[in-house]
Amino acid sequence: MGKILPLAAMEKILKKGSSDIRVSDPAKEALREYLEEKGIELAKAAAELSVHAGRKTIKAEDVKFAAKNK
Amino acid sequence: MGKILPLAAMEKILKKGSSDIRVSDPAKEALREYLEEKGIELAKAAAELSVHAGRKTIKAEDVKFAAKNK
Repeated sequence: MGKILPLAAMEKILKKGSSDIRVSDPAKEALREYLEEKGIELAKAAAELSVHAGRKTIKAEDVKFAAKNK
Repeated sequence: MGKILPLAAMEKILKKGSSDIRVSDPAKEALREYLEEKGIELAKAAAELSVHAGRKTIKAEDVKFAAKNK
Protein backbone atom coordinates (compact mmCIF):
# COMPACT_ATOMS: atom_id res chain seq x y z
CA MET A 1 0.00 0.00 0.00
CA GLY A 2 1.07 3.58 -0.53
CA LYS A 3 1.77 4.90 2.99
CA ILE A 4 -0.45 7.87 2.33
CA LEU A 5 -2.03 8.23 5.76
CA PRO A 6 0.12 9.62 8.60
CA LEU A 7 0.84 7.30 11.54
CA ALA A 8 0.08 10.05 14.06
CA ALA A 9 -3.48 10.12 12.72
CA MET A 10 -3.67 6.32 13.01
CA GLU A 11 -2.70 6.62 16.67
CA LYS A 12 -5.41 9.21 17.30
CA ILE A 13 -8.02 6.96 15.71
CA LEU A 14 -6.87 3.85 17.60
CA LYS A 15 -7.04 5.73 20.91
CA LYS A 16 -10.69 6.48 20.20
CA GLY A 17 -11.32 2.76 20.57
CA SER A 18 -11.04 3.01 24.33
CA SER A 19 -10.25 5.78 26.81
CA ASP A 20 -7.48 3.82 28.48
CA ILE A 21 -5.51 2.05 25.78
CA ARG A 22 -1.97 2.17 24.43
CA VAL A 23 -1.09 1.59 20.81
CA SER A 24 1.94 -0.17 19.29
CA ASP A 25 3.65 1.17 16.17
CA PRO A 26 2.85 -1.96 14.11
CA ALA A 27 -0.81 -1.52 15.11
CA LYS A 28 -0.74 1.96 13.57
CA GLU A 29 0.76 0.53 10.39
CA ALA A 30 -1.90 -2.20 10.28
CA LEU A 31 -4.66 0.40 10.60
CA ARG A 32 -3.06 2.49 7.85
CA GLU A 33 -3.01 -0.51 5.55
CA TYR A 34 -6.65 -1.32 6.32
CA LEU A 35 -7.89 2.24 5.80
CA GLU A 36 -5.90 2.82 2.61
CA GLU A 37 -7.32 -0.39 1.17
CA LYS A 38 -10.88 0.64 2.11
CA GLY A 39 -10.26 4.13 0.74
CA ILE A 40 -8.94 2.94 -2.61
CA GLU A 41 -11.86 0.51 -2.97
CA LEU A 42 -14.24 3.39 -2.37
CA ALA A 43 -12.29 5.70 -4.70
CA LYS A 44 -12.67 3.23 -7.57
CA ALA A 45 -16.41 3.00 -7.06
CA ALA A 46 -16.70 6.80 -6.74
CA ALA A 47 -14.68 7.37 -9.93
CA GLU A 48 -16.96 4.98 -11.84
CA LEU A 49 -20.02 6.73 -10.46
CA SER A 50 -18.73 10.14 -11.56
CA VAL A 51 -18.07 8.86 -15.09
CA HIS A 52 -21.51 7.24 -15.07
CA ALA A 53 -22.97 10.66 -14.27
CA GLY A 54 -21.10 12.22 -17.21
CA ARG A 55 -18.48 14.00 -15.08
CA LYS A 56 -14.71 14.03 -14.84
CA THR A 57 -14.74 15.15 -11.23
CA ILE A 58 -15.57 13.05 -8.18
CA LYS A 59 -18.16 14.88 -6.10
CA ALA A 60 -19.24 14.23 -2.51
CA GLU A 61 -22.42 12.56 -3.80
CA ASP A 62 -20.30 9.92 -5.59
CA VAL A 63 -18.36 9.13 -2.41
CA LYS A 64 -21.56 8.99 -0.34
CA PHE A 65 -23.36 6.81 -2.88
CA ALA A 66 -20.39 4.42 -2.99
CA ALA A 67 -20.20 4.31 0.81
CA LYS A 68 -23.93 3.62 1.11
CA ASN A 69 -23.82 0.77 -1.40
CA LYS A 70 -20.84 -1.05 0.07
CA MET B 1 -16.33 13.20 13.13
CA GLY B 2 -12.99 14.41 14.34
CA LYS B 3 -11.26 15.73 11.20
CA ILE B 4 -8.22 13.66 12.01
CA LEU B 5 -7.24 12.64 8.47
CA PRO B 6 -5.62 15.30 6.25
CA LEU B 7 -7.57 16.34 3.12
CA ALA B 8 -4.42 16.15 0.97
CA ALA B 9 -4.22 12.44 1.77
CA MET B 10 -7.92 12.06 0.88
CA GLU B 11 -7.18 13.62 -2.52
CA LYS B 12 -4.29 11.20 -3.14
CA ILE B 13 -6.51 8.23 -2.30
CA LEU B 14 -9.40 9.46 -4.47
CA LYS B 15 -7.06 9.95 -7.43
CA LYS B 16 -6.09 6.29 -7.16
CA GLY B 17 -9.66 5.50 -8.19
CA SER B 18 -8.88 6.39 -11.79
CA SER B 19 -5.87 7.75 -13.66
CA ASP B 20 -7.82 10.59 -15.21
CA ILE B 21 -10.12 12.00 -12.57
CA ARG B 22 -10.50 15.26 -10.69
CA VAL B 23 -11.66 15.54 -7.11
CA SER B 24 -13.88 18.16 -5.46
CA ASP B 25 -13.18 19.44 -1.95
CA PRO B 26 -16.49 18.12 -0.56
CA ALA B 27 -15.59 14.69 -1.99
CA LYS B 28 -12.38 14.74 0.07
CA GLU B 29 -14.39 15.64 3.17
CA ALA B 30 -16.86 12.82 2.46
CA LEU B 31 -14.01 10.32 2.15
CA ARG B 32 -12.49 11.60 5.40
CA GLU B 33 -15.80 11.09 7.17
CA TYR B 34 -16.15 7.56 5.75
CA LEU B 35 -12.62 6.49 6.65
CA GLU B 36 -12.68 7.98 10.15
CA GLU B 37 -15.92 6.16 10.83
CA LYS B 38 -14.47 2.86 9.55
CA GLY B 39 -11.29 3.48 11.53
CA ILE B 40 -13.06 4.17 14.81
CA GLU B 41 -15.26 1.09 14.35
CA LEU B 42 -12.12 -0.99 13.88
CA ALA B 43 -10.36 0.71 16.80
CA LYS B 44 -13.19 -0.26 19.15
CA ALA B 45 -13.00 -3.89 18.08
CA ALA B 46 -9.19 -3.89 18.32
CA ALA B 47 -9.27 -2.36 21.82
CA GLU B 48 -11.71 -5.06 22.97
CA LEU B 49 -9.52 -7.74 21.47
CA SER B 50 -6.43 -6.42 23.26
CA VAL B 51 -8.27 -6.41 26.60
CA HIS B 52 -9.57 -9.90 25.82
CA ALA B 53 -5.94 -10.98 25.38
CA GLY B 54 -5.00 -9.50 28.76
CA ARG B 55 -3.17 -6.47 27.35
CA LYS B 56 -3.44 -2.72 27.68
CA THR B 57 -1.80 -2.12 24.32
CA ILE B 58 -3.36 -2.60 20.90
CA LYS B 59 -1.02 -4.70 18.77
CA ALA B 60 -1.03 -5.23 15.00
CA GLU B 61 -2.59 -8.66 15.53
CA ASP B 62 -5.63 -7.05 17.18
CA VAL B 63 -6.12 -4.69 14.24
CA LYS B 64 -5.66 -7.53 11.72
CA PHE B 65 -8.03 -9.83 13.60
CA ALA B 66 -10.66 -7.09 13.76
CA ALA B 67 -10.23 -6.31 10.05
CA LYS B 68 -10.53 -9.98 9.09
CA ASN B 69 -13.71 -10.46 11.11
CA LYS B 70 -15.55 -7.43 9.79
